[in-house]
Amino acid sequence: MQDKANGANSGSLEVEDDLYGLDPEFVRSVEEALAEGRTDAARELTEPLHYSDAADLLERLDAEDRAKLVEVLRADFEPEILTELDEGVRDEVIEALGFADLATAIAELDSDDAVWLVSQLDEDERARVMEALPSETRAIVAQGLSYPEYSAGRMMQRELVAVPAYWTVGETIDYLRAAHSVPDEFYDLYVVDPRHRPIGKIGLARLVRGRRPQRLREIMDDESLTVPVAADREEVAFLFRQQDLVSAPVVDGAGRLVGVITIDDVVDVIDEEAADDMLRLAGVPDTDLYRAVKDTVRSRIPWLLVNMCTALVASSVIGLFEHTLEQIVALAVLMPIVAGLGGNAGTQTLAVAVRGLATKELDFDNALQVIRKEVLVGMINGVVIACLIGPVAWAWFGQPTIGIVIGAALVFNLFIAGLMGSVIPLTLEKFGIDPAVASSIFLTMCTDSLGFFAFLGLATMFLL
Amino acid sequence: MQDKANGANSGSLEVEDDLYGLDPEFVRSVEEALAEGRTDAARELTEPLHYSDAADLLERLDAEDRAKLVEVLRADFEPEILTELDEGVRDEVIEALGFADLATAIAELDSDDAVWLVSQLDEDERARVMEALPSETRAIVAQGLSYPEYSAGRMMQRELVAVPAYWTVGETIDYLRAAHSVPDEFYDLYVVDPRHRPIGKIGLARLVRGRRPQRLREIMDDESLTVPVAADREEVAFLFRQQDLVSAPVVDGAGRLVGVITIDDVVDVIDEEAADDMLRLAGVPDTDLYRAVKDTVRSRIPWLLVNMCTALVASSVIGLFEHTLEQIVALAVLMPIVAGLGGNAGTQTLAVAVRGLATKELDFDNALQVIRKEVLVGMINGVVIACLIGPVAWAWFGQPTIGIVIGAALVFNLFIAGLMGSVIPLTLEKFGIDPAVASSIFLTMCTDSLGFFAFLGLATMFLL
Repeated sequence: MQDKANGANSGSLEVEDDLYGLDPEFVRSVEEALAEGRTDAARELTEPLHYSDAADLLERLDAEDRAKLVEVLRADFEPEILTELDEGVRDEVIEALGFADLATAIAELDSDDAVWLVSQLDEDERARVMEALPSETRAIVAQGLSYPEYSAGRMMQRELVAVPAYWTVGETIDYLRAAHSVPDEFYDLYVVDPRHRPIGKIGLARLVRGRRPQRLREIMDDESLTVPVAADREEVAFLFRQQDLVSAPVVDGAGRLVGVITIDDVVDVIDEEAADDMLRLAGVPDTDLYRAVKDTVRSRIPWLLVNMCTALVASSVIGLFEHTLEQIVALAVLMPIVAGLGGNAGTQTLAVAVRGLATKELDFDNALQVIRKEVLVGMINGVVIACLIGPVAWAWFGQPTIGIVIGAALVFNLFIAGLMGSVIPLTLEKFGIDPAVASSIFLTMCTDSLGFFAFLGLATMFLL
Repeated sequence: MQDKANGANSGSLEVEDDLYGLDPEFVRSVEEALAEGRTDAARELTEPLHYSDAADLLERLDAEDRAKLVEVLRADFEPEILTELDEGVRDEVIEALGFADLATAIAELDSDDAVWLVSQLDEDERARVMEALPSETRAIVAQGLSYPEYSAGRMMQRELVAVPAYWTVGETIDYLRAAHSVPDEFYDLYVVDPRHRPIGKIGLARLVRGRRPQRLREIMDDESLTVPVAADREEVAFLFRQQDLVSAPVVDGAGRLVGVITIDDVVDVIDEEAADDMLRLAGVPDTDLYRAVKDTVRSRIPWLLVNMCTALVASSVIGLFEHTLEQIVALAVLMPIVAGLGGNAGTQTLAVAVRGLATKELDFDNALQVIRKEVLVGMINGVVIACLIGPVAWAWFGQPTIGIVIGAALVFNLFIAGLMGSVIPLTLEKFGIDPAVASSIFLTMCTDSLGFFAFLGLATMFLL
């Protein structure tokens, strides 16, 4: 097997950290070729690239070089490149390609990729591209777009192999050899009844190993599940992960086989869903590494504005105790400890709960058990931290009571952290809101405000 | 296809939110059967379950019921169940099974799963299980364990199909039909040279569609990459995701084919890596939903202790300005706003950077560009927030200067947030430290301490 721009070395057991992916040296040589107008050199360098690497390369270049490279690649532009680009860069490349070449590229894609790509265009562009598509592709894309976003219907490809149960292994293999409409790559055949409803599936390995006169009925696996066309993609990802599937049949409302979802599409979903949870918990709606400054500001500021409001709530709580703070300035010095530890302990619980909800290990059936555990963990952690911070505060400000007050406030706030860190995401899930999006706002509002209230309130009671 | 305990309905386009996964009703009926000692009923309920669902069921039960269910399942215990259990529960189930039955189960597993399972045992248990294994399995497991943790060698299975290039399609199909050592499921055949080095691969679909007299040499794909046995599993996951692979050949130091990694193992890695980043950013080493309170406290407290220390640093910074705070208590009221927004803006940058490093979209080649952008985004966001908070602070405390001071501190702190949110993970990556683990500690220390310092410092200069 050949190693290319991103080749793997296999000379010894020692391997580099970065085995695969684009080499910076390589990127620079393409940039130089483009800068010096050596179009042929640029084409020679980029032609052997896998489409994913070509997409990465386009992302790496600046806008000017990117437009140049599109020209270089235009003659035989691999359509799959478009499916691997980040949003911002994709828009630029599509603009540079123009609608005619874009339509040609889309027509060459597998139906699932074609639908996805068209779905990413804005309304104007979409209308123009649809017009430019060959009529067959247009019909398939239009049907795909009729399914809800993030549904199985959007993920599935229509190219599949469906065969009747009474066929023999020999007949099936002969059919596969002769048929024109069989996809290039597939892993499972679907056995369907006369109404085109799936009744079983056969892995290719089993078909190949079967004896020619055997009926498919005898060797098919009739235990696997079907995916309704409207199923959410997270459900699909769960099913694949749970049952280690490589492909699954998609059925319409009448139970008829209309498409197949393959593992490579599911890998993208699994990867995105887990990463999205992380980004959303941190208040970023999307990866925006390659997005322009203007768009990045616009996407991140709403979260900061909400945080500004919750910070104002926390400030107002402190404002209630201005009189106390005037007299004991030490309290102002210690305040960040109470709020900070509450927020951090709460975030720990939150991350575990959000992950648990995503993997279905946490649901309303075992929610109480989990909440109880988190509250207990929070309080124990609170006691441990309190035993350490209390003496420090005492030594620092020479007053034992201040140590006791901050200790008590910490235990209380870590109790709140465990409670709210688990209750908030469960509540949001109950109301159909993505717990990763809004949980951390509510959480820090609770731990900040209640933490300050407990600390300053106790101080007012016992120190004044 | 049959629908089971977790069946999918496909009657209409309307689908439930929870299509797959265990039904709480079902769990309760198993619990009842176990409680009432109706062993046969429990067996009847659980026997048709997919091993993943059986694992989920074991996780859901309490310790007593779990032990009872292991007894119920013991006679034909599906070994794959063990590979799907969470750590804590797995230990319990393994203990309940005993070493003899555990060894039997391990011997039935695919080699990659067997190696993984043995690697999860502690040293004592491992020695005892190894002793109980059939000698052939023992040798395979021992070899697998000799590869580094998280390496391709640990992920790969030894069961594969390797064939010479001069064979014809017909010979190959006949061989697959006759051979005993061919795995039950496989998607690609590897073509090897006389020294057993992979020179190409052939998808099963292409083999089946080939003409019988065609040589494999003519139809094989010789462009795909090999994976060194010591490659890190994150690199492997990157390769699969990047090139949409279903399987990849693993080679030893001499380039000989020693195993194959399949997509289902990679799915687990992709899922874990992305989720681990989220959990680590939040200060949780692992999902611990099913872990005992004692162990959960132990795993989460180190992070809180580190946070306690960074909070003390922030407190000391405030302590420098006790004199200022004594005179203007309003500053104490506004402090959380400066620190909170800095921390949140920094976390946004951090999450994007950690994700970028994981997907290789961010590296040292484009680092400067990304840092510059993040700093700019931070400052613009800072100006927007400052323009909103400034007037609020002015109105609240009746002093225009206080509005200017908090505004300036916010711009400065969001500049720090953008800078540190990108520089910290890049620096950790440079030194080979997982950026998800330690980044957020350093980040909040910077935004808290520098934020307080800027705010209280400016106040001391302009308000006293």
